[in-house]
Amino acid sequence: MLITPGKLLAQINSPKDLKKLDQVQLVQVCEELRQFIVDNVSVYGGHFGASLGVVELTVALHYVFNTPHDQLVWDVGHQAYGHKILTGRKDAFHTNRMYKGLSGFPKRKESEYDTFGVGHSSTSVSAALGMAVASKYQGLHEKQHIAVIGDGALTGGMAFEGLNHAGVSDTNLLIILNDNCMSIDPNVGALKDYLTDITTSRTYNRLKDDVWKLLGKLSTFGKNAQEIVSKVENGIKSTLLSQSNLFEALNLRYFGPVDGHDVDHLVAILNDLKAIKGPKILHCVTVKGKGYGPAEKGNATTWHAPGTFDKITGEIHKKVYEKPQAPKYQDVFGHTLVELARQNEKIVGITPAMPSGSSMNIMMKEMPERAFDVGIAEQHAVTFSAGLATQGLIPFCNIYSSFMQRAYDQVVHDVCIQNLPVNFCLDRAGFAGADGPTHHGAYDIAYFRCIPNIIVAAPMNEQELRNLMFTAQLPRTEQAFSIRYPRGQGVMPNWRTPFEKIEIGKGRLIEDGDDIAILSFGHIGNYVVDACEVLRKKGISAAHFDLRFAKPLDAGLLHDVFTRFSKVITVEDGCIQGGVGSAVLEFMADNQYTAQVKRLGIPDRIVEHGEQLELHQECGMDSEGIIIAVQALLEVPITSVRRNIALKNI
Amino acid sequence: MLITPGKLLAQINSPKDLKKLDQVQLVQVCEELRQFIVDNVSVYGGHFGASLGVVELTVALHYVFNTPHDQLVWDVGHQAYGHKILTGRKDAFHTNRMYKGLSGFPKRKESEYDTFGVGHSSTSVSAALGMAVASKYQGLHEKQHIAVIGDGALTGGMAFEGLNHAGVSDTNLLIILNDNCMSIDPNVGALKDYLTDITTSRTYNRLKDDVWKLLGKLSTFGKNAQEIVSKVENGIKSTLLSQSNLFEALNLRYFGPVDGHDVDHLVAILNDLKAIKGPKILHCVTVKGKGYGPAEKGNATTWHAPGTFDKITGEIHKKVYEKPQAPKYQDVFGHTLVELARQNEKIVGITPAMPSGSSMNIMMKEMPERAFDVGIAEQHAVTFSAGLATQGLIPFCNIYSSFMQRAYDQVVHDVCIQNLPVNFCLDRAGFAGADGPTHHGAYDIAYFRCIPNIIVAAPMNEQELRNLMFTAQLPRTEQAFSIRYPRGQGVMPNWRTPFEKIEIGKGRLIEDGDDIAILSFGHIGNYVVDACEVLRKKGISAAHFDLRFAKPLDAGLLHDVFTRFSKVITVEDGCIQGGVGSAVLEFMADNQYTAQVKRLGIPDRIVEHGEQLELHQECGMDSEGIIIAVQALLEVPITSVRRNIALKNI
Repeated sequence: MLITPGKLLAQINSPKDLKKLDQVQLVQVCEELRQFIVDNVSVYGGHFGASLGVVELTVALHYVFNTPHDQLVWDVGHQAYGHKILTGRKDAFHTNRMYKGLSGFPKRKESEYDTFGVGHSSTSVSAALGMAVASKYQGLHEKQHIAVIGDGALTGGMAFEGLNHAGVSDTNLLIILNDNCMSIDPNVGALKDYLTDITTSRTYNRLKDDVWKLLGKLSTFGKNAQEIVSKVENGIKSTLLSQSNLFEALNLRYFGPVDGHDVDHLVAILNDLKAIKGPKILHCVTVKGKGYGPAEKGNATTWHAPGTFDKITGEIHKKVYEKPQAPKYQDVFGHTLVELARQNEKIVGITPAMPSGSSMNIMMKEMPERAFDVGIAEQHAVTFSAGLATQGLIPFCNIYSSFMQRAYDQVVHDVCIQNLPVNFCLDRAGFAGADGPTHHGAYDIAYFRCIPNIIVAAPMNEQELRNLMFTAQLPRTEQAFSIRYPRGQGVMPNWRTPFEKIEIGKGRLIEDGDDIAILSFGHIGNYVVDACEVLRKKGISAAHFDLRFAKPLDAGLLHDVFTRFSKVITVEDGCIQGGVGSAVLEFMADNQYTAQVKRLGIPDRIVEHGEQLELHQECGMDSEGIIIAVQALLEVPITSVRRNIALKNI
Repeated sequence: MLITPGKLLAQINSPKDLKKLDQVQLVQVCEELRQFIVDNVSVYGGHFGASLGVVELTVALHYVFNTPHDQLVWDVGHQAYGHKILTGRKDAFHTNRMYKGLSGFPKRKESEYDTFGVGHSSTSVSAALGMAVASKYQGLHEKQHIAVIGDGALTGGMAFEGLNHAGVSDTNLLIILNDNCMSIDPNVGALKDYLTDITTSRTYNRLKDDVWKLLGKLSTFGKNAQEIVSKVENGIKSTLLSQSNLFEALNLRYFGPVDGHDVDHLVAILNDLKAIKGPKILHCVTVKGKGYGPAEKGNATTWHAPGTFDKITGEIHKKVYEKPQAPKYQDVFGHTLVELARQNEKIVGITPAMPSGSSMNIMMKEMPERAFDVGIAEQHAVTFSAGLATQGLIPFCNIYSSFMQRAYDQVVHDVCIQNLPVNFCLDRAGFAGADGPTHHGAYDIAYFRCIPNIIVAAPMNEQELRNLMFTAQLPRTEQAFSIRYPRGQGVMPNWRTPFEKIEIGKGRLIEDGDDIAILSFGHIGNYVVDACEVLRKKGISAAHFDLRFAKPLDAGLLHDVFTRFSKVITVEDGCIQGGVGSAVLEFMADNQYTAQVKRLGIPDRIVEHGEQLELHQECGMDSEGIIIAVQALLEVPITSVRRNIALKNI
């Protein structure tokens, strides 16, 4: 379906074209840009509310600044659709987030206007500061560097680290605080309250004005007042003005708050700020979903990435299925956690700003005193969980696999070195799909497996997830317990199975066979089930084992496998270096087995975005890829049209 | 040498004994405690300045609070000597930091008074908040939770994440800001300036008083003034008082600054604070090295951990050597970086608060505009480096191996996914020695090797380090380059060798042999040299290869090895799961080699503190351990008195 841009937007193929317009035309550009985003996302899906919220800001920034010479860094990046559309990607925009199409996030390879690739939050200040310091060193004193960061992203500690350095840097750094009181879910924490305070009550600038006026008037009130004035004036000037604002306290000149939807005013103030040297922050108040009624009035979390919808009525399209569907793993987690917590009062839940993404919101609703959204703060989430565990509580800390990278030291230093029984649930493990490489949970098996005092598990289906969670909440005095599962649906429409304890480190035989053994880890084992069925029809008898645990490995199972089979395939939805396949190789070396082993998994390169199945196919990890690998290892003819492509990858 | 505690201290075996004393006696307790620390550290070494700085605070905390029921968390923990001495470890204190002795940091296994193990910075707020939230949930409303955090540690973003959550938590959390303007090196950043500001200029409390007084007086000035008052009063009250202080902005009640060396006042104020509910912060100003003249007056960085010294004269003992000694690897890094930077103007250096520990201070002194101490902020350091690299500069970002865990996501997300040419130098890789498990650089080979777009290298000696650094600064448009090296000395007294380019992914043959091949990675290869010499005398001909690169592996070298040898040993100073030995196993599997392989490295458990050699011995990775492993693999008699111990470990 062809989406037609408005009259002005149609002529804009780069910010150069935008700059040719009169400033009075910008309001119309904003309207057309907003409409183009609505038209596209309603048909093709994608992130929505965030981009609508920064339409005016985006237009103003490209109108005022000399991009791409001036460096514009978007934090997180799901708000950068307008930026992409204005910077030469309008005609390709319908491929957004599709396999081989545009990335849903800024990406250096895609455009020179995308100065820094993003996806995770809170990186923009550090990146833009690096650019600004480089420009200063290179004598490019007029070059501008702009970081656009949300109030949610500002709660990530990394942003604070950047601000602390920026404040003493003397560089051309402009930080634009895009304050909409939202992460994906409503933003939380003391900082949010503070920002709301300075926005909704008297503002810092008003206060400043009032105090100055007060001091001015006082001087007419005679000696007594004069004395008071002189006594407090220095204090007021030096202390109040430099300290009465959190950002000024960090030596950043603070401007605002301003209406982030007044494009005229934004252009004026950005022009002013261009002339002011040194690090500074502009506080813009915006509304997520601005300009699209249903999003503006409706639930902002729903409209963060609503899927496709009817742009006229605002009705979000829901797929209708004839048969009952398997649930999402995240919902199995969310409901199971509450079920367990009802029976075990020691259970508490922790999420760093992902209540709806992880389905922790189910527990937050039913047991608000036992479930904690700690903000975009993975590091804090893990060590906070460790603190809870020291007092005998049983924390389930849910963090997406790729975000867990943020808390790696805390897992090592605060949990595993101390051998504390903290439970981690890693959602979005394996390929994340359309969100692409920044969100792929590719490395967690490798980066967890190398740490002592942690159990590394993955369920093959909903029942297994429930039983692993049940097992993880049983009394235990040591060992962290991590459970990884993918984005999306499981395989069991009737998933509310009774709980059963799983023995730690015990895998299971899914189906026996004679010719070859396939060892899978986690949900990806369902491809193996399909593959084995096809192989059986082709006369190949494959045995399928679900390892369940990458650590500790099931030694009994593996002794059995390597005693019986000389050809073995491992399959995991994780990086192939250091993953569970490598753990199996280590077991072999330690026990002097010499089977031929083929490891399937995410290859040693950055795999881009696409549907999970597309990516699994690309990497030869889907059913067909597994069939091809089996046939290759058994040296029988390969019966697949994909054999050439696939063999290259596997 | 027996160290005798003072009269009062001699009677204190737990805080109970301390509480029996009259408050007036606390000054003497402080004096004796300080003396005991001086006596011990001067003879046995260890951290020094930090513990002296918190003597009064330590005494006051244990006097006022009901430890260990009340939870006291020390951030970083190198300041906790006084705490250890007062909590039952006085008589064992001479074993501090020694193999099998007391840990230099708080440690849960060591004492119930050590509520949370530390070593890395900025964790205390999160941990104590977790404890406080747990107590609240458990109905323990009188239980107190105290985090003692330095102004340096406060620059770590994780602390900010904790504060942001603490501010909305409604718990009995007291954060004590131990403000001494120091990390190990002088503290940096905007926050430091802010803290200095509120400490040295008029204080927040003074300002608050003045404003209240001003408003009070104004009310007598008639209608006009009244109007002004009513106009600004709300603003003053709600905005100024809640916003004029960074911590109040985060909804933490702020008290102070107070003199952290006035034990009487500290006891009084801590008693007051006990009665005040909710999260609060007490700002204490202290002096690192307080009470010991040479430390107080001298260089605080030197006195952070001075080694042994003459306590009377303050002269720090220096070892005198007859022969020229090999340099420390860190100094080879520091000098080489400057040498290269003189020739290549694109080179810049980045350290997160470790100028002296990494020897980046050499460059900071000679080229202050090109070397950046960014504070205790590893995450920022990495992404800041990535930002620099986007502008064509060549960053050398030096981070200790165990601290690099803090920046793991930034390496993945901001450097490797974008394929940016950032250079990482990982100091303290492998066993850190006396600092123990929190500081051991055990996991970096495994956690880096699984990421795409990164070169993972380790030099076997000083010349190799220089050449790897030389190679890393040659023009390169992609790939991160990491170089790991250990704490301590190399092996080449004449280390200023001319630069030579090393081909990426090329290992080297150190010595050829026939019976077995030993593949080493990094400095630990020097043990292999010794082992091979001994083995040769015993009639065993071992070939020794220095892999140099864990990624990419030297395929040519490995094909040669596995073609010629059926028995192979790998040696690395890193965790054995997923490390370079596992990379070799992966190569074998991918190429269908079936040699017998024994991997030596750090075993899958937490290895405690001790001299590096002691730990290598314990883990069977020293020369003797390697000899034993060779003999075991070759099935010849094992000629070592350590064979029983060692065989258990290897």
